[in-house]
Amino acid sequence: MTDKPLSIEEFEAALRAVGAERYHNLHPFHKLLHGGKASKGQMQAWALNRYVYQAAIPRKDAALMSRVHDREIRRVWIQRIHDHDGLGEDLGGIERWLKLTDGLGLDRDYVISMKGVLPATTFAVEAYVRCVTEGTQLEAICSCLTELFAPSIHKERIAGMLANYDYIGDDVMAYFKKRLDQAPRDATWALNYAKEHARTREQQESVINILRFKCNVLWAQLDALYHAYVSPGHIPPGAFVPVV
Amino acid sequence: MTDKPLSIEEFEAALRAVGAERYHNLHPFHKLLHGGKASKGQMQAWALNRYVYQAAIPRKDAALMSRVHDREIRRVWIQRIHDHDGLGEDLGGIERWLKLTDGLGLDRDYVISMKGVLPATTFAVEAYVRCVTEGTQLEAICSCLTELFAPSIHKERIAGMLANYDYIGDDVMAYFKKRLDQAPRDATWALNYAKEHARTREQQESVINILRFKCNVLWAQLDALYHAYVSPGHIPPGAFVPVV
Repeated sequence: MTDKPLSIEEFEAALRAVGAERYHNLHPFHKLLHGGKASKGQMQAWALNRYVYQAAIPRKDAALMSRVHDREIRRVWIQRIHDHDGLGEDLGGIERWLKLTDGLGLDRDYVISMKGVLPATTFAVEAYVRCVTEGTQLEAICSCLTELFAPSIHKERIAGMLANYDYIGDDVMAYFKKRLDQAPRDATWALNYAKEHARTREQQESVINILRFKCNVLWAQLDALYHAYVSPGHIPPGAFVPVV
Repeated sequence: MTDKPLSIEEFEAALRAVGAERYHNLHPFHKLLHGGKASKGQMQAWALNRYVYQAAIPRKDAALMSRVHDREIRRVWIQRIHDHDGLGEDLGGIERWLKLTDGLGLDRDYVISMKGVLPATTFAVEAYVRCVTEGTQLEAICSCLTELFAPSIHKERIAGMLANYDYIGDDVMAYFKKRLDQAPRDATWALNYAKEHARTREQQESVINILRFKCNVLWAQLDALYHAYVSPGHIPPGAFVPVV
């Protein structure tokens, strides 16, 4: 027996329910950081590790494009690479992330070298890069649907970080401000794609599952940060050690 | 014993020698086509099959970008995707190729469906797409070095096709005219990359070999066309049959 497809409304509600249950704005590390309770060392550790995620996004998007035979989809998707790598004079989101790590007093070469990152960060990020080549094209595209939940987290971050940390100014928050426009545009496109292309219940479930997977990718990064930099004494060998 | 590296001059000469021996401007099908001796059906078969190659190039370039961790290289390389897929109002090289197939009287949906192409075309093209993920990054980048030899073939094509076929006008040759600027820019960048990054003799040989491989990818496509559409009676089942 094949299950009946969800209606479009039920399907969208199921996707949004994944965010309500699992998006990383619910993680204790997020609350700590944006609630103004993080030490500068914890803030640095977060920005350093999150750089690995930011820097991997264009590879993930290129991997996706490498399997898409439909030129119109590639012409839409390439915008994501422009957003992160920049295009021409715009140096892009990764560069804006480095403004944040600069602002936190981290050495730029050290950040780019990724030498101090938690191994769990890299494992989670590379699992995301791989998922867009290993799943169906529907799953690959819909793995970005966490962008549906991003604008509210970015707003929380901007307000929380500016209000609570005197070493964080407007300029270093440029990454998040830019994403306030970019993320909804991408999420709307992907949500429409999901609604149009996930026709069977099985396809709908695969989209819901890939969104859970993507939430896990984000959540696991904060778990690793919490374990290393909040629970005392758990920084793994070789990882960044804050200067107290 | 490890062989001594070639000097930069010897290395470049070795690369250029591959073109002099193996580039597809030497193929009998090329000579037939651009020497004015091809039938319209042969011209159509060529444009139809070559579309498969053109349409695959952005996937090949995205596959390459998906493995490049250096943002500066990705920011250069993405231009190739723009060239073929277009960017914004520019609809790109694949669209210009379709102007050629339009001009040859081929139905556009039929061309895009790839239903009538020779299986050998697809096999060769997909081998090229795969090679950029399966080899080293040096090989992946240098597989494009056939662009070194492209401007002269494009000039031959433009002159030969305009002079010899009354059904080919200036507008349908737009693809090749555009490539006269694009190909040398790309080839120069890749040649410099090869000179800088192929330091050992083994690396230099790997670059020479990948260029041979790429010449084979192009040559095999013309072999398949010659066998099917010049040698009589060899069109494989399901492939395009010209209307005489």
